[in-house]
Amino acid sequence: MLFAKGFHLAVSAEVQQNKPRKASENGAMSGTPLDRLHTLLNDDLAEVERLLADRAASPVATIPDMSGYLIDAGGKRLRPIVTLAAAKAASGDRTISDGGAAIKLAAAVEFIHTATLLHDDVVDDSDLRRGKAAAKNLWGASASILVGDFLFAKSFTLMVETESLKILDILSTAATVIAEGEVRQLSVMGRTDVARDEYMAIVEAKTAALFEAAARAGAIAAVGEGPTSDALGEYGRRLGRAFQLVDDALDYGGATAVIGKSVGDDFREGKLTLPVLVARERASEEDKAFWERALDVSRQTEEDLPRAIALIRATGAVSATLKAAREEATQAKKSLLGLSETAARDELALLADYCVDRAF
Amino acid sequence: MLFAKGFHLAVSAEVQQNKPRKASENGAMSGTPLDRLHTLLNDDLAEVERLLADRAASPVATIPDMSGYLIDAGGKRLRPIVTLAAAKAASGDRTISDGGAAIKLAAAVEFIHTATLLHDDVVDDSDLRRGKAAAKNLWGASASILVGDFLFAKSFTLMVETESLKILDILSTAATVIAEGEVRQLSVMGRTDVARDEYMAIVEAKTAALFEAAARAGAIAAVGEGPTSDALGEYGRRLGRAFQLVDDALDYGGATAVIGKSVGDDFREGKLTLPVLVARERASEEDKAFWERALDVSRQTEEDLPRAIALIRATGAVSATLKAAREEATQAKKSLLGLSETAARDELALLADYCVDRAF
Repeated sequence: MLFAKGFHLAVSAEVQQNKPRKASENGAMSGTPLDRLHTLLNDDLAEVERLLADRAASPVATIPDMSGYLIDAGGKRLRPIVTLAAAKAASGDRTISDGGAAIKLAAAVEFIHTATLLHDDVVDDSDLRRGKAAAKNLWGASASILVGDFLFAKSFTLMVETESLKILDILSTAATVIAEGEVRQLSVMGRTDVARDEYMAIVEAKTAALFEAAARAGAIAAVGEGPTSDALGEYGRRLGRAFQLVDDALDYGGATAVIGKSVGDDFREGKLTLPVLVARERASEEDKAFWERALDVSRQTEEDLPRAIALIRATGAVSATLKAAREEATQAKKSLLGLSETAARDELALLADYCVDRAF
Repeated sequence: MLFAKGFHLAVSAEVQQNKPRKASENGAMSGTPLDRLHTLLNDDLAEVERLLADRAASPVATIPDMSGYLIDAGGKRLRPIVTLAAAKAASGDRTISDGGAAIKLAAAVEFIHTATLLHDDVVDDSDLRRGKAAAKNLWGASASILVGDFLFAKSFTLMVETESLKILDILSTAATVIAEGEVRQLSVMGRTDVARDEYMAIVEAKTAALFEAAARAGAIAAVGEGPTSDALGEYGRRLGRAFQLVDDALDYGGATAVIGKSVGDDFREGKLTLPVLVARERASEEDKAFWERALDVSRQTEEDLPRAIALIRATGAVSATLKAAREEATQAKKSLLGLSETAARDELALLADYCVDRAF
């Protein structure tokens, strides 16, 4: 047993007080919540990894090659972790059965995510993904589209194996919402007069819907539908919103303004995100004209990114974005209050804060 | 009642003799088998049309606009027709219940097909589809990818509504096989030394799998699994193979060598099809070198298409392709022999021949 009862109590008290807490505050906790969830879910995640490799196999070499490139690429497995931790939290930390529904679901969710990445690379015309060359730059856009389709279809065959129509309903609806959100994002491309509500609706669809579905369906796989799966679904939704807002902030350097190689991707793609929306709301007429021009990728110049970052800092747009993310994390934790105390629940609560902390 | 008993007997006798038959041979039959199936399935198809429009609705205008462009574009609805006719043939021409599983399944199959078309236009970089501008030329490649994803996801929500895990299994497996076939086709692009078996495996995957799944699942929606659904699945598979081979032949003008605007698309995309395989097998060394160069789209010239068509005619490659298609149609009809006599069964049998006849 990795976690003593005292640890649970300590974390639970904090969850109830609804305060952000840093892992370093407690000597008994080592690593990040993500590290500890990896440890807690070790055997289940190993099964998920086997399933991912197994189901991406094909005599058509491009399929395992490309899938492997993305899946082996050391993704954090955040979505499978949320799925499995939700199953564990719902069932009182019980072991997830071998090859059970939650394992298949977790692999299906990772396949949907990977398929989305493959298509996004083509849609956004991005050359880098997690600091590596985008798959489309190695295998071509056509292969990215079709291998994405393959993984998406495979995710459904995995879900069918759970034999739960409810799980299939939740995930197929989420897949629809994701695609709808991506089309909506495309249709506001180049516009700078997007309302905050409209932007949050896009975040809700393109990012939060999959986290919500993963957590809700994970809980249902373990204990069926009810207040517990609703609570975990709401947790996933809020976590997804926080996660996307932090991603948006990190693209402009986060709170510490560390300008690494992954900074400016959204800007170069002309993507409207919350930092830009806020900066534009607070901009002078001259700066509004700058945003108007610079987010039109055909009129963007090399010097625009430093100016965009400077404007975003001057207007406090990153801080405002991270404040919004922190509020989402708080709501994520609140939704867990009614659940019984388990290591999985407590780590999920800490994970919400951790997702925001990574921007500081 | 549209069809008198005598008509059934007449057609049934022919099915058993396994001869191709032309619609014009019988005065009592008006129009093509496709027209008659449209009439036979009129109410069911109207429900499918309503469902297609209803489920492609979205506040994000690009989605209904693009879907409508493809779906209203007067597709033949061949796959929904096969789905519904299989359900009717399996159940002894019984009326398909309002909003029943077969209706939802037929709409789901059409959505999968439409999603595939949207992605194929981007993959093949084709500018025309059924003589109209490809959707990607009007809305862009990104919208084609994402609206395709939306329709694909929607097809799964429709299938979930059938509440049949067997149907979900068949269709999600078919979707995987289709994507795998498309990747395989991509990976042989530009190669001319593809074996006939390898080519037929691609046809089986990218075209026949959906026809097979549609017919099999249609039968299962009506009467469950058994020899009838197996027979109809085999019918769909053979029909799909025939259909693709005829498409391949038509791209080089079919048997009559009518060179319309839709001729040469495959060639311009460097696509290897059976007519090319046969022509190359039978080619002189010089002509082999021609095929090698001309199927590399980067080295293709304006004058290559007329020469390709001439070589294909001189080697009898279109005839060989249509002979293979005719054999598939014969096998399709054979698979229906064990079914009880129904108008739906007889029209399906005639449809197999009709699919080949359209090349003459």
